[in-house]
Amino acid sequence: MKPILVYQTDFTYKEGAISAMYGVVKSVDRELEIIDGTHEIPKFDTWSASYRLYQSMPFWPQGTIFVSVVDPGVGTNRRACVARTTNGYLIVTPDNGSLTHVKRAFGIDEIREIDETINRLRGMNTDDVSVFHGRDVFSYCAARLASGIITFEEVGQVYNPDEVVMHPIHEPFFKAGFAKGIFEINDPNFGNNWTNLPLKSFLNAGFAYGDRLQVTIFHQGQEVYAHKLLFERSFGYAKTGEAILYNNELMRVSIAVNQGSFVEQFGIGYGPEWQVEISK
Amino acid sequence: MKPILVYQTDFTYKEGAISAMYGVVKSVDRELEIIDGTHEIPKFDTWSASYRLYQSMPFWPQGTIFVSVVDPGVGTNRRACVARTTNGYLIVTPDNGSLTHVKRAFGIDEIREIDETINRLRGMNTDDVSVFHGRDVFSYCAARLASGIITFEEVGQVYNPDEVVMHPIHEPFFKAGFAKGIFEINDPNFGNNWTNLPLKSFLNAGFAYGDRLQVTIFHQGQEVYAHKLLFERSFGYAKTGEAILYNNELMRVSIAVNQGSFVEQFGIGYGPEWQVEISK
Amino acid sequence: MKPILVYQTDFTYKEGAISAMYGVVKSVDRELEIIDGTHEIPKFDTWSASYRLYQSMPFWPQGTIFVSVVDPGVGTNRRACVARTTNGYLIVTPDNGSLTHVKRAFGIDEIREIDETINRLRGMNTDDVSVFHGRDVFSYCAARLASGIITFEEVGQVYNPDEVVMHPIHEPFFKAGFAKGIFEINDPNFGNNWTNLPLKSFLNAGFAYGDRLQVTIFHQGQEVYAHKLLFERSFGYAKTGEAILYNNELMRVSIAVNQGSFVEQFGIGYGPEWQVEISK
Repeated sequence: MKPILVYQTDFTYKEGAISAMYGVVKSVDRELEIIDGTHEIPKFDTWSASYRLYQSMPFWPQGTIFVSVVDPGVGTNRRACVARTTNGYLIVTPDNGSLTHVKRAFGIDEIREIDETINRLRGMNTDDVSVFHGRDVFSYCAARLASGIITFEEVGQVYNPDEVVMHPIHEPFFKAGFAKGIFEINDPNFGNNWTNLPLKSFLNAGFAYGDRLQVTIFHQGQEVYAHKLLFERSFGYAKTGEAILYNNELMRVSIAVNQGSFVEQFGIGYGPEWQVEISK
Repeated sequence: MKPILVYQTDFTYKEGAISAMYGVVKSVDRELEIIDGTHEIPKFDTWSASYRLYQSMPFWPQGTIFVSVVDPGVGTNRRACVARTTNGYLIVTPDNGSLTHVKRAFGIDEIREIDETINRLRGMNTDDVSVFHGRDVFSYCAARLASGIITFEEVGQVYNPDEVVMHPIHEPFFKAGFAKGIFEINDPNFGNNWTNLPLKSFLNAGFAYGDRLQVTIFHQGQEVYAHKLLFERSFGYAKTGEAILYNNELMRVSIAVNQGSFVEQFGIGYGPEWQVEISK
Repeated sequence: MKPILVYQTDFTYKEGAISAMYGVVKSVDRELEIIDGTHEIPKFDTWSASYRLYQSMPFWPQGTIFVSVVDPGVGTNRRACVARTTNGYLIVTPDNGSLTHVKRAFGIDEIREIDETINRLRGMNTDDVSVFHGRDVFSYCAARLASGIITFEEVGQVYNPDEVVMHPIHEPFFKAGFAKGIFEINDPNFGNNWTNLPLKSFLNAGFAYGDRLQVTIFHQGQEVYAHKLLFERSFGYAKTGEAILYNNELMRVSIAVNQGSFVEQFGIGYGPEWQVEISK
């Protein structure tokens, strides 16, 4: 079977852009299967685009083609590319930081710049459009790849994966009874904050389910939250409305308010300026 | 053909969770067809989950498998189950009230607790994750069922449908020229309120299209709204901005503001504490 | 292959209506492919419905069937119809202005009123429902068409395309170094405003990329915005937070704030009362 196309963008479904993109795919090859990853990445947020690819990719069949269009630099000189990951996926995306987590976690074994003289939609009165590569370049190129009309080699010139635009990644620190990291991302729906602390390292540092742990959060160096919290397998172990440390879906230590929103209740964001320290 | 998987959750598309779930389905069987029922059930609201299943289920082909994940108790001791309805559908869901309306309206002829020793995703570094049964248990199990890898019997141990967790259901009351019920749910988009009063009983009580009827709404026993309203086939019979009683898509008496929102304009909610009386 | 059904409505995914509609389609023919165009058209806004059809339609394979349900007059005497466009598509829709742009841009060569005695869902306890033609009429009829159960001729009685309900369309005006038009629509996500000024006419009037142009916006005749703006191929040519004139995805002159929202920052809407003048 032909590979599935999984899409993620910051377009939302509020207007006709997604319909136009998917129409391009179906016009290239009626058989192709398109699935919404998400169209609600925060606007212009290539960090979130990067994280969401990393979060969902390994659960898809190998060979799946991801189309990621968070593209504030569309029409300027950022590269449009297709990356092949070491674990067997293709990503069609602007090279603007969106590949950060995937490159670091899974590796990119080859990357090619999309050759617009070949892999760009033509004849639709869009040749002079510079603002919708999601439709005219990424969808068109991805559909041709998925359909087998072009090979990966025919995407365009190869370039060095070392040149991929990367966001800085922060490494956590552990010692006995102490862990220090950042909130790497949140769950904007349930209002949970996800640290970059892997469960395994956390347990190795001597923490265990059932512990009550001191959690201190800093924003740009300033303490903004300090509480003793229960550490458990699920937020369901906390009383309704109570904050808790738990092991999230990606095996990272996280904070939730059971049936509430930690993010909203305490105004805690994510990114390198949001540090968290946990101790016994 | 293999059964369709129709999903409903309270996850929204704001992050990568749905993509991960659907990836699991496609990794089990590339051929399976997945359709979004809705991913915008109000958070933790198992009552709404129950109502939305009831509202849409009968319009789907028999054999369709519904995956319903509104699961505030994930990782605690609530049951994960697959229910087979008397009208020929399967529902993969936490047993937490989400089956209330379907059980009452259509009946459940057999229900089985998902055996996680067999029907849980393994080998993806998620064995120790307790907070995402939507991905690791419900999607994986539903995909195996739809694919024919397991039979319904192989889901796990059968249990008594009488043990299914049920929300209380309120029965309407009718006499000549009088009806009394509750707002059972609303339409959060168009702002209509739906009572539990079936059209047929309402007409039998002597009401007719074209009548102007006294509508009184009580919140926790306190009168909060009292007006004479036209009763008609469609909200389109009211002037723009005017409230009207009408027969909704499920043949229940409902209230709308034509091209407005009754819910927002009058601040009327739903649930057992929202009673409504209608008289001539 | 059978035609794809592309849906657009103002229903949102907040409740079970879309699931019920799609269930009807799959109950008519399990093989039919359904794709979300958008379910977030502004409520009751048949102008936006019309524009979104026009915006996305030509990118789909010929033969695609669009189902458009923005239907404030449901259950009253507006016509339910299927239109065949001159460029080879079918649109299943209330005839309430939703066909405006498509008729003008592509032409309608034949239009038929849906005969509800044949092409309406029966036997589901919905015969007396007047408020959900999206499910009971449009989806049912569209699925039968796509499946080949009925021909276009069997939809119902033909009527004169001149009778199609049309919104008024405003024509732009150009002379050397001057252009005058309206904001015809916006992009509600990125906050861009799209004029009705075609790029080609604009360039013919003597404007060129790189120009700094005087942009004046009037609301109901009153000046509400006046600035010199750079005109370029993409909003990416402006500094972050700066407004810019650019050529949009449909080859119309548009205004954006780079990585911001022109709509929100300046409170500019769309429609005939929002005029824009551009001069050297």
